[in-house]
Amino acid sequence: MKNIDDIAKLAGVSKSTVSRYLNNGSVSIKTKEKLDKIIQEQDYQPNQFAQSLRAHRTNMIGAIIPRMNSFAVDETIKGVKSICDELNYRLLLNFTNLNSELELDALDTFYRSKVDGIVLMATDITEKHLEVINKMDIPVIIVGQSHEHLHCIVHDDYQAGYLVGDILGNQGYKDILFFGVTETDIAVGIHRKQGFVDALKTYGIQPHISIASFNYQEAMLDVTSALQKYPHYDAIVGATDSIALAIHKYNSEHNLYKYIVGFGGDPVTKIVSPPIHTVSYAFNRAGEVAMEKLNQLIQHEIVENQITIDIDDSFKI
Amino acid sequence: MKNIDDIAKLAGVSKSTVSRYLNNGSVSIKTKEKLDKIIQEQDYQPNQFAQSLRAHRTNMIGAIIPRMNSFAVDETIKGVKSICDELNYRLLLNFTNLNSELELDALDTFYRSKVDGIVLMATDITEKHLEVINKMDIPVIIVGQSHEHLHCIVHDDYQAGYLVGDILGNQGYKDILFFGVTETDIAVGIHRKQGFVDALKTYGIQPHISIASFNYQEAMLDVTSALQKYPHYDAIVGATDSIALAIHKYNSEHNLYKYIVGFGGDPVTKIVSPPIHTVSYAFNRAGEVAMEKLNQLIQHEIVENQITIDIDDSFKI
Repeated sequence: MKNIDDIAKLAGVSKSTVSRYLNNGSVSIKTKEKLDKIIQEQDYQPNQFAQSLRAHRTNMIGAIIPRMNSFAVDETIKGVKSICDELNYRLLLNFTNLNSELELDALDTFYRSKVDGIVLMATDITEKHLEVINKMDIPVIIVGQSHEHLHCIVHDDYQAGYLVGDILGNQGYKDILFFGVTETDIAVGIHRKQGFVDALKTYGIQPHISIASFNYQEAMLDVTSALQKYPHYDAIVGATDSIALAIHKYNSEHNLYKYIVGFGGDPVTKIVSPPIHTVSYAFNRAGEVAMEKLNQLIQHEIVENQITIDIDDSFKI
Repeated sequence: MKNIDDIAKLAGVSKSTVSRYLNNGSVSIKTKEKLDKIIQEQDYQPNQFAQSLRAHRTNMIGAIIPRMNSFAVDETIKGVKSICDELNYRLLLNFTNLNSELELDALDTFYRSKVDGIVLMATDITEKHLEVINKMDIPVIIVGQSHEHLHCIVHDDYQAGYLVGDILGNQGYKDILFFGVTETDIAVGIHRKQGFVDALKTYGIQPHISIASFNYQEAMLDVTSALQKYPHYDAIVGATDSIALAIHKYNSEHNLYKYIVGFGGDPVTKIVSPPIHTVSYAFNRAGEVAMEKLNQLIQHEIVENQITIDIDDSFKI
């Protein structure tokens, strides 16, 4: 049986390119066509390669996480871990403290530790990320961010925003303030807000939009500044639970009893009184799907590039 | 220059025993005396061994964490990471989801990944833990739990309990309820409570003691059951911030305005209204010290077995 080296030689490409091709990683269209042809001509089954590659497997998976004290990250990783346990992978984590540079380091560390695949909860996908990921001959799956050239698992943020906008419109709220986040964050800054705005448009309502930070302490300042000017809204929405908690804090301190909504399903929203309404995200499921798909990529199966996880639509007020 | 194999042969012990000896790990007194003597006779400097061992170093550190969505764990690991960054180690995490069996797996995974040393935030130190740790020829440092035969970093829980008892006594509180945790947890269940009780004794006050779970949801049931019977305390103390948050929730729902104290410094205690008073722990510092000491052990320096980190004594009410 010919091996991966022979195929690489026949195609005039490097062994890692063939490996990347077999992993459904990024190779140029020209190279892909050439390899498709050679593999067909030689009447090879990818499984043969798979078996030869599997001999090098370590059954270790690396997950890169931006922060730890986060309900979303915790739930996602629990989902990843449950599938790892089921499939007999050992899971290692690398914590980047929200530093995008450290994500590149973490990719390299895991690669050198010879993990079979990587789950990346990225803060951002830069050109440098793409370059590092494309150089590696192991599969990488991104959770929570979207990039057309990578395998990604995302939540349906437009749906979540639409759900909240629709319910507020339906319940007769009219004077509504939405604290969004910066539009450099596509998922939260753009999609989540757009769903909200579009739903309210069907009721003829245009919400007021303000911007707040992801960080609770900074969001507190943003919320204070906005509500000091005009505190008379019927309902106030935070694009994240942290922002919703900041709104709640401001309300409690100023004896305002506004209707507050958050996004994320963080249990802290139920500890405060009165509880904050929040849209639950299927973080655990996203982690499970990420690991299931990563395993398929490790087995050289074909996996769609973009997978969208539905929001828990049981949200009501 | 003779190497570690020669010394092992001369002493009639395994190479890993010599390595453990050089790492200040656990060896029997008899073996220690034998190795002391051989090394003296041969006029060897431990540095020579150190250098020969260092050649195998990977500059990777493994940290084992029981859970992720926790302020204490997050802060501790940030401390570990900052020293890793300073000393050019790469840090990998293994998440055990509060499962003591998985801690043993994690020790094994890291050992096989050839890390230079391990930080273990253990839920519990069992005989099996000791056995696994003693078999390894790399140093392991425990954070947050104490064991006489292992290198441990602990917080001064007696001091923390005393601080709160003293302040409540001093401020004239008399009818006081303390929600402790099970005494199988030495640090929180015994030391923290004892400091609290001892401080109040100097004021001639004996607090009521009740037991609650570490888990917020379960603590909520414990708190409800105790306060339904008798809600008339002046002050209510939770041995952890989670318990204090459960007390707060019960109070808010029943319009009780009791004085509440927690332990841990979790920022969530400042989000609720009114804020909960809490004793801050130097988690970040504990993580830094753990990594500094682990590095010393990796360099074959001598490190004291038990290190106690002071509580932040700026707590006041």
